[in-house]
Amino acid sequence: MMKVFCQGLDLSDAILKVIKASSTRTTNPILEGVKIIAEDNTITLIATDGELAIEKRIVADVKVEGETVIPGKFFSEYVRKLATEQIELTLNEKNQLKIKYTDSEVFIQCMNVLEFPNIQKIESKEYFEIKKTDLKDIIQKTIFSVSLEDTRPVLKGCLFEVSENKLTSVALDGYRLALAEKPIKSTTAKVNLIIPGRSLNEMSKLLDESSETVKVYMQKNYVMLEQDSTKITTRLLDGEFINYKQIIPNNFTSTVTVNRLQLEDALERASILARVSNDNSVKFNIKDNTLNLQARSEIGNVDENLTIVLNGNDLSISFDARFFKECLRVSSDEFLKLCFTTSINPCIVKPNEGNDYLFLILPLKQLY
Amino acid sequence: MMKVFCQGLDLSDAILKVIKASSTRTTNPILEGVKIIAEDNTITLIATDGELAIEKRIVADVKVEGETVIPGKFFSEYVRKLATEQIELTLNEKNQLKIKYTDSEVFIQCMNVLEFPNIQKIESKEYFEIKKTDLKDIIQKTIFSVSLEDTRPVLKGCLFEVSENKLTSVALDGYRLALAEKPIKSTTAKVNLIIPGRSLNEMSKLLDESSETVKVYMQKNYVMLEQDSTKITTRLLDGEFINYKQIIPNNFTSTVTVNRLQLEDALERASILARVSNDNSVKFNIKDNTLNLQARSEIGNVDENLTIVLNGNDLSISFDARFFKECLRVSSDEFLKLCFTTSINPCIVKPNEGNDYLFLILPLKQLY
Repeated sequence: MMKVFCQGLDLSDAILKVIKASSTRTTNPILEGVKIIAEDNTITLIATDGELAIEKRIVADVKVEGETVIPGKFFSEYVRKLATEQIELTLNEKNQLKIKYTDSEVFIQCMNVLEFPNIQKIESKEYFEIKKTDLKDIIQKTIFSVSLEDTRPVLKGCLFEVSENKLTSVALDGYRLALAEKPIKSTTAKVNLIIPGRSLNEMSKLLDESSETVKVYMQKNYVMLEQDSTKITTRLLDGEFINYKQIIPNNFTSTVTVNRLQLEDALERASILARVSNDNSVKFNIKDNTLNLQARSEIGNVDENLTIVLNGNDLSISFDARFFKECLRVSSDEFLKLCFTTSINPCIVKPNEGNDYLFLILPLKQLY
Repeated sequence: MMKVFCQGLDLSDAILKVIKASSTRTTNPILEGVKIIAEDNTITLIATDGELAIEKRIVADVKVEGETVIPGKFFSEYVRKLATEQIELTLNEKNQLKIKYTDSEVFIQCMNVLEFPNIQKIESKEYFEIKKTDLKDIIQKTIFSVSLEDTRPVLKGCLFEVSENKLTSVALDGYRLALAEKPIKSTTAKVNLIIPGRSLNEMSKLLDESSETVKVYMQKNYVMLEQDSTKITTRLLDGEFINYKQIIPNNFTSTVTVNRLQLEDALERASILARVSNDNSVKFNIKDNTLNLQARSEIGNVDENLTIVLNGNDLSISFDARFFKECLRVSSDEFLKLCFTTSINPCIVKPNEGNDYLFLILPLKQLY
């Protein structure tokens, strides 16, 4: 049983936030549901896919306390159309939820609340604290390199290394690696956490662009953060992350300084042609103060020429244009350094000054 | 051979306009191409699917006149990335087009210009003239009812009836009919034209929102209109249109006056539930001064109640919610009239005042 009054706008906002955690491709229908709890003049909505959970509390006028699980997709579509209304929710003894607004009403058959998974309560005193914008930045600079394949589950997350005064995030798949670091305000412990990419993505979207800090709470196998009555809890990935430090080379024979936007535009054009070929391959010919990008396909050929500063040897090396473009897109500096040794060794992309972030990209076999 | 200089922005704008006429699902590769003609200090781009053709002229510095056919999709993607550049186009004796900009260049293998279909030249003196906004409005109010099926080809277009002082457009598929009319400034002939829906859509997008008039030229089997150096030519559909006048009933036993936006919102919500069932069915229960909308599905039931003015008898009748919503979306009046006879006869939707437009919708069989 339940009887509660609330504002359509609040409910609509809440359901849109939590629904992102619910599972869309599942054999377990309860994970497509959203749990609704009315108590203490609050409605709490919770959705989870079993790994990630999002909860949101809103103010409500609770006449009779109660809880149930509503079909998530339907409820979110419906409530979105009621954003301007005052809403009355009533749950009857058949577990049917009545949504009443103006002169109209809808009955929805709900699911058994006992089947809904328990959400891990985080009551730990362990946390690290970081500026929201820094956490968003670090996620954005590494999450695109998270592996999408199931073969090695730890690679579906970012490794968060929390040390005394900084947080380092690392992601890698078989072809590239991304690393970013930022200072933290404080931490209660030095730890390594492997956080699923999907969860980091939702955390990043939740955080606003303010210069405030956020506390990320840590408890065996879980982390949690909260903003504006919205709480995101995620299970961590089990296992050992790859010892990434030994993958990153330190000595280079060619170092190129290049304008990021110019390189991005040129690669963008070259890759329109490269996409037509099978491997998306763009060849970098580095000679004197020119970077020449080449792509070949049955439709035609392209030659893009950029002015650069080269320290070291001339070199020809081919890359998957997509991997290179993704690094450039999340980079934030006007000039970047590209560091090479030979045409079969990885390239390192990093800011011209500083060590805030670094990308490693494996080359392709050269076809011409 | 060809050699010409032009602005990237002009070329990019032109290719994006004409590419919409080119064919994407074709067994004839030349129809995926865009013809480019350099002559008289002008570049003309032309694309066609054999039925619809769009041409656009831009100013250029033509050094050597020439023409060829470039792969349309590739060229449009590429040129879009060159909008800020000055571009040099050169065609060599192997029919390869070189696009040169700043220090970079791309070579594209072109197609045989002799294989490109001839575009019908419209040199007729026959035309009708109508306000651009009126033509756009009339298209928008009828095009959504054009049939998407190939079984009866004439129904894939709108019937344009040009009479002395007005233009009437009619479209219908097996389930509904849409009719809209507007005054015209003049016409050289009273004619009936069946214009393909796809062509009307492009014409509507081309026309700006100004209060100027446009001349629609008519020549055996073709019509053509032009704005800002862009010309759209379309073949007409062959055959007799259905005698639509005999389908539209004139006598009704129930007439409902309803607020359009209120009905649209209520139907929108009801159809979230109706979509779950197979037939998208929403039941209209009309009684006294209330219109009650009902939808039933395995997830739940909805009852929406609207205040109306009813003249005539009570009635229950079911519709496909999508057809009803599409009519409401293109209607422009605050209040609409819904006219009924029985639950198995079509409903007529029209503005509360005036006869500028009219929609006919067949009811569904009532299931409850």
